[in-house]
Amino acid sequence: MNVQIVEVGPRDGLQNESVIVPAEAKIELIKKLIDAGLVRIEASSFVNPRWIPQLADAEEVLQGILPASKKDVRISALVPNVRGLERARLCGVSEVALFMSASESHNRKNINKSITETFPVLAEAAKEALALGMRVRGYVSTVFGCPYEGAVPVDNTRRVTHALVEMGVSEVSLGDTIGVATPKQVHEVFQELVKDVTTERLAGHFHDTRGTGLANVAAALAEGIRIFDSSIGGLGGCPYAPGAAGNISTEDLVYMLHGMGYETGVDLNRLTEAGAYIQEQLGRELTSKVLKANLAKQKQEEHT
Amino acid sequence: MNVQIVEVGPRDGLQNESVIVPAEAKIELIKKLIDAGLVRIEASSFVNPRWIPQLADAEEVLQGILPASKKDVRISALVPNVRGLERARLCGVSEVALFMSASESHNRKNINKSITETFPVLAEAAKEALALGMRVRGYVSTVFGCPYEGAVPVDNTRRVTHALVEMGVSEVSLGDTIGVATPKQVHEVFQELVKDVTTERLAGHFHDTRGTGLANVAAALAEGIRIFDSSIGGLGGCPYAPGAAGNISTEDLVYMLHGMGYETGVDLNRLTEAGAYIQEQLGRELTSKVLKANLAKQKQEEHT
Repeated sequence: MNVQIVEVGPRDGLQNESVIVPAEAKIELIKKLIDAGLVRIEASSFVNPRWIPQLADAEEVLQGILPASKKDVRISALVPNVRGLERARLCGVSEVALFMSASESHNRKNINKSITETFPVLAEAAKEALALGMRVRGYVSTVFGCPYEGAVPVDNTRRVTHALVEMGVSEVSLGDTIGVATPKQVHEVFQELVKDVTTERLAGHFHDTRGTGLANVAAALAEGIRIFDSSIGGLGGCPYAPGAAGNISTEDLVYMLHGMGYETGVDLNRLTEAGAYIQEQLGRELTSKVLKANLAKQKQEEHT
Repeated sequence: MNVQIVEVGPRDGLQNESVIVPAEAKIELIKKLIDAGLVRIEASSFVNPRWIPQLADAEEVLQGILPASKKDVRISALVPNVRGLERARLCGVSEVALFMSASESHNRKNINKSITETFPVLAEAAKEALALGMRVRGYVSTVFGCPYEGAVPVDNTRRVTHALVEMGVSEVSLGDTIGVATPKQVHEVFQELVKDVTTERLAGHFHDTRGTGLANVAAALAEGIRIFDSSIGGLGGCPYAPGAAGNISTEDLVYMLHGMGYETGVDLNRLTEAGAYIQEQLGRELTSKVLKANLAKQKQEEHT
């Protein structure tokens, strides 16, 4: 396996769907994702359930999946601060992800604090998680553009990334939160960041709002990045939220990576089963192209 | 303008939709595409209407659009042979496109002839078209994979491309007909082809069946290719034909190209109008991500 996929569908995907999926179905989905060969799965979020009712069942999901998951599978959860961390710890989670934004306005809107004010909150959570023997991941949102500010200087991203690394995170995932990036920008941003941080500690997190998601992955691959976040089926971007769009689809990502000679450890047929399952649960056609093509092929084969 | 877009939606897109769009609506669509700044549009096809009823109105469409189109706009039509060419000529078309496949089985299925038997048919049409002062384009299908044979050796593509160039075509468009290509293969194929043909005479024609379309464009750009085919809205791939998927979307292509610093001469807002128009005509949500994002943004702005 020379490219790691971090499956974020159960968290980043489902938190942006209008339908609330029951905990049992989330657990079933995660089991199917593990069966397909995914070894890194972000299962839920311990933010205040008032803000994200879709993931209010984080305890139930984590407690349902952790005992069932294999030793070499890393199940993680998003936590905003030490309170979230405490909830995660009580569930037996051994890997957490912290988050903040590269742009001031988005950070305020999302966390209700300035970037500078956010640092000690995350540092405290990181310190405690590390003391508990957990692995810690960092997310930086709006790296490639902010819905309120537009362009975001790469120096902002360098500053936030540097701060997260100083806190002891094992890797930083750089997010194109609103899906505006194009390959040229991806080359430029990663070329800047690898001046401070080795490629092994950086991940690409692309949304496919404007169809450039996989092109951006290819650009990041060319810069040596080998960790990518994606969502089964391209989950997220509920059709009632204007302009929203999901993460890049795990099926499409795996298809492209395998076609380019990379190994992911993922079985694309089994991944299709997971995608078909959650598509049915949500009752809407998901955006993954490979899911669509594979399901159509299966249907055709049944008829012949 | 340093990247040329060949809009193939009215032909390659609409021939793969289940709904038959009336000629007046096709003419209106093409006018909107011209208004958006597109200067190369493949308007219809003069193949036997029995095979493609969606484009049976080729005469009406061409005669409707040719007098209205500006001098610097190149309106073309697909022709299979001298009979099709004669129909095109009678409409006043000054640019035609010929087509064949890189794989034997697809060529037989599509043209009912072997590759070798197809050469003289196209050569005759090319010769006559050139004698009439027309510009001639060549298409090669199944360059990156064949639905019947799987992998297609790049030597097949070299042979067919070479034959088309010998016939006097001004450029050859290399098609990923079933949308299986990944960027690695795109690099490899174009690196081989530019040994025989200059980059200015090659175009990339990608379908987005597995989500890799724009990533493949980025790969071809890196090999010096500057002509790409696309369809407004991502037309094609009717939902009732299993596994079918449309061309890459012109809106998404333009978005990515502009983001990468290329000039296309296309106004993305006006392009959205054209996409919204044909989406309404077809009565289904098209796959273009930029179309969806821009329409959602407009809707949001109307409400605030």
